[in-house]
This record gives sequence, C-alpha cells and structure tokens, in this order.
Amino acid sequence: MNIDMIRAAARRLDGHVRRTPLLNSPFLDDIAGRRVWVKPECLQHTGSFKFRGGWSAVSALEPSVRAKGVIAFSSGNHAQGVAYAAKLHGVPAVIIMPADAPRLKIANTRALGAEVVLYDRMTEDRDAIGAAMAEERELTLIKPFDDPLVIAGQGTTGLEIAQQAAEAGIARADVIACCGGGGLTSGIALALEAEAPGLRARTAEPEGFDDAARSLAAGEITRNAALGGSICDAIVTPQPGDLTFPILKRLCGPGLVVSDAEALQAIGHAFNRLKLVAEPGGAVALAAALFRQDEIDGDDVIVTISGGNVDSDIFSRALATLD
Amino acid sequence: MNIDMIRAAARRLDGHVRRTPLLNSPFLDDIAGRRVWVKPECLQHTGSFKFRGGWSAVSALEPSVRAKGVIAFSSGNHAQGVAYAAKLHGVPAVIIMPADAPRLKIANTRALGAEVVLYDRMTEDRDAIGAAMAEERELTLIKPFDDPLVIAGQGTTGLEIAQQAAEAGIARADVIACCGGGGLTSGIALALEAEAPGLRARTAEPEGFDDAARSLAAGEITRNAALGGSICDAIVTPQPGDLTFPILKRLCGPGLVVSDAEALQAIGHAFNRLKLVAEPGGAVALAAALFRQDEIDGDDVIVTISGGNVDSDIFSRALATLD
Repeated sequence: MNIDMIRAAARRLDGHVRRTPLLNSPFLDDIAGRRVWVKPECLQHTGSFKFRGGWSAVSALEPSVRAKGVIAFSSGNHAQGVAYAAKLHGVPAVIIMPADAPRLKIANTRALGAEVVLYDRMTEDRDAIGAAMAEERELTLIKPFDDPLVIAGQGTTGLEIAQQAAEAGIARADVIACCGGGGLTSGIALALEAEAPGLRARTAEPEGFDDAARSLAAGEITRNAALGGSICDAIVTPQPGDLTFPILKRLCGPGLVVSDAEALQAIGHAFNRLKLVAEPGGAVALAAALFRQDEIDGDDVIVTISGGNVDSDIFSRALATLD
Repeated sequence: MNIDMIRAAARRLDGHVRRTPLLNSPFLDDIAGRRVWVKPECLQHTGSFKFRGGWSAVSALEPSVRAKGVIAFSSGNHAQGVAYAAKLHGVPAVIIMPADAPRLKIANTRALGAEVVLYDRMTEDRDAIGAAMAEERELTLIKPFDDPLVIAGQGTTGLEIAQQAAEAGIARADVIACCGGGGLTSGIALALEAEAPGLRARTAEPEGFDDAARSLAAGEITRNAALGGSICDAIVTPQPGDLTFPILKRLCGPGLVVSDAEALQAIGHAFNRLKLVAEPGGAVALAAALFRQDEIDGDDVIVTISGGNVDSDIFSRALATLD
C-alpha cells in the first residue's frame, strides 16, 4: 500500500468521481476558534466517499473477472458505492447488509441495481456469509476498508485535500476524517504524507466505538466492546483493519472522540451554515473540530463530511438541536 | 446590460465566489423522465447566488464611495450577500428587511456585521425607506435585481453553467432558474445567449406569485395580486424588473409554475438524492423539472437550487413529504 497506488486510482477515477469542493463558513470558524474547512464527500456520487473506493476496486478488475460480478458487505455506504460502480461498469453486484441499516440505504442499494442480502448484525458473521456467496458464484469480494484498491480509492480524497489546502494557503493543519475501519483515514494519511507533509491525518469516532483512538493510544489493534447502538452506523466497526492500522499508527495524531449528541449538533450546523446534509457517522469529524478545539493544533482544521445518507427521522432530531 | 458586463463581473468575482459544481442523481432522472442537472447555489457563500451580485456591485464601486457604505433591501438572501460582500471589503452595510423574513436570515445578516432595519411587508414601502436612508448617510443603494452590476454578478452563474454543460456534453437543454425579480434568470439568459446558444433560460415561480410567467405570456410587465403568503419568501416580488423583463422577454421560454407543496417535495428530493439543503424559493426550479415534465423539452434539463437559507421548521415539513 503506497502513494503510487493512490495516484493510479486517481487516474482511474478521473472523470467518473466528483472532485468535491473545500467549503468554509465564518459561523463555523467562530464556534471552532479557528478556520474550519469542510470536504463534503456527502456530495460524492451515492452520497459518500465510498463510491471512490468502489470505483477504484471495480475498475481495476480484469474485465473477464469483473463480468462475473462483485460482492460487498456494508452498513450501507460501501454498499451503494460498490453497487453504483458495478452498475456503471455493467456488471452484477450482490450486497450483504445488516437488517438494521437505515431504510434509505437499503432502498438505494436495491434501486442501484444490486441484489441485497440482509443479515443480523448481532448474531450472524457477515464475513462468512460474504465469503460463501463469493465462492459459489465466482464473485469478487470487495471489502469495505481492508483492501489496497479500496484504500487507494479513498486516498484520492487526500490528494484533493492536499491540492485544495495549498490553493487556500494552508500549510499546516490537522485533517480529521470520520473513521470506521480506517480506509478513508489511512488513504488520506498516505496522500498527505506524499503531497502535503504539513497536514496530519487524524481519526474521529463516536463514544463507545472509538477503536481507532484506543488502538492508536495502545499502539496495537483494540476491539470495541459492542457492535451496535450508536446512531453513527456508518462508522461502527469492530476494530481497525490489518492493512489500515499500521498506516494510522505510523502517520496519524491522537484519535478524537465525540458523543452522538455532538454528532447531531454538527449535523445541525452543517445544515445551517453549509447547506449540506450530513449523516451522524459523517459528522463526527466536524463535531470534533467544533467541540474538541483544545485537542487540535493550528489556525486551520480540515474535516471530512464523509457521507449524507441519513433517514429523515434522525435528521429531524439533529434539526431540533438548533432550537 | 450585455455579456461584456457579465464577463467583467466574472473577473471581479474570480477567487472570491465559489464555482459551484453541476450535480446529478439517477434517482432524480427517474422522476423527471430525463437527465436532471442541478447547479447548487445554496453552496455559494451566504447560502445563495445573491453573494455573486453583492460582490459584483460592491467590488465595482469607487473606493471613496464604497468606504461610506452600502444599503440594500431584501427578504434575506440579497441582504446576506450584500452584507458579507461589504464585510469582506471592510465597509459598512445597512440592510432593510421585512419583519416576517425567516429568523435565520435576519440573524445571519446581523451576524455578518450589517445594521438591520426591519419593515412591515404589507404596510410599508421598502423602496422609500431605502432611498431616504441612502441619501441621509451617503450610502450606495444596491438593488436586489434591477441593477446592471447585480444582474452581471448573477449572470456569472450562467457562464459557469455554459461551461459545465459543455463538459457534460449537453448541447441543448432548458435551464430553469428560480425567479423573483428576474436578476438571476436574466443574467443567466444573457450568458447562455453568448456562450451556449443551445441552452434556453426559463423561469420557475410559486403559484400565486407567477408574475414572470404571466408577464412573459402577456408580453408586458404584470403584477402579482398579493405580496406575501407563499413559503417561497425569497422569490416573492411584486413584478419583474424594468431592466430584467426585456431580457426575459427576448430570451426566455414560457414560465413554469409550481405549488408550495411541490416546492416542499423538491426540497425532500434534494435532501435525499443530492444531500443539499434547499429553501422553498430555491427549490421551485427543481420542482418544475420533476413535476412539469410535459412542459419541458429535451433529454436534459438544468436547474438552479438558488438558495438554502431555510428555517428548520419549514425543512421538517419538507422531510415529512418523504414518508
């Protein structure tokens, strides 16, 4: 896993993936006590950065292999990213999703042409289900984060951040990414190491599911006690990946942790100040910038809003925090 | 009023105004029966395209005149656009706003450093109030639409659409703009005439406040019966402007009209499919693309989401349309 793989992914993604802007607002700066820059991957195709990794992986397959189809397991955003990438390549996709994923994500994944297989997040092993189906149908399994091609695709976000930060005159800053298994954060970290060494990647996670923060503190992979129960469903994973964690450990600053309530408040601010729809798991980095200012260095901070696939009832709860 | 003024505005705006992307979604295409392209000016600074006109006008003033300050009257978006443009130029701004404007717009305008003067939309004449204050303090009045520099600034949206449509391979399409006094639509129309003659500008308005559609049908300026009562507050104006209407008449197709309920539904779809926050007045063009497909020609349609400054209670009503 290296920067050349990210650059190669950027070439495959060119013209197919949106180059999202880098946004800011004086109102957010006031709250955070420094300039806040937002990379809105909620505006990416399928509503999250996961389309980058999906396209990267699907586009890199041998055509004869790709034609048999792909399979992915995901709480929703990776599902949509892979499904849409497969559809645009004209190949079948099977997506294995937890039965308690947001309705919108399940519906969207089906509407994007994928065959959706639901499993119970508490009692069933999605890895085993996925591996069995992949073997049976000769589908290529596209893992949500612990796959070099997927990390490379997510890392293109970091290439864009490096370039956009330079354009904005930002030489030094923390770059906070919403972190589940670490695919986005590790990809960004590698891109920044090569292209913007003054920028440092950091993870943001919800309380109770701060496996990356605790793993970084311990210097070794540490699991979460629970596997569900946060509204930040998109980034609730058991532990950092075997491929991603060594990258996080080498390159990232200390992990940041916010509450579900703070994630909801951040959604409210993104609504008010940026006119963006963020999902809870996609808002934890912004929440960290706004509400953990003592744990962040420098005059500027860059955050990802990594996804916007949120059901309206959760979004209404976030709007209520504005009153 | 001509294309050279828009090109000159584009040079003044360069580096200060966001070049918003052109977004799409297969889900919106399915509803509309053709490809739908969205120009999200809700992502512009201050949450609407009005910052373009504000910057264009403020930046064009003689420095000695500009230093005395500017004044504007507006239901909110022009207010914020002018206030922020003035703040960034380091000059004072007085903004005259209707007392029933959304709370968020009034609060934002004050927070952007402007002195806000409220008036009663039903009983008071904002033009008279503005003119008196402008004379007393030697402020330069920046009208919301019937001002060549403002139209030129809004027209830069059209220059971007022309370029982005060419990049997307769109040679022929209707370009629907949310229309109040006609500043945005007329500016876009002039830009398209010069840069993308296969694209045709059209107006979208809420029922009951369809002065542009009726004026276009009649061939002469026609007033609205009421001056308030739509949730589309941003685009409720008495009539098209004296400068804007001749441009609309010469260049635009028939005006499109949607209901408030359809505007709310369009907000819901923008939330779901584009992860964008649209305000009702900023969603009427998308509503027209989605719900007036028989009145639109061609395989592609381009719409502006012209603003996103919406209070959370109205937005919650829009989310309820998704159930």
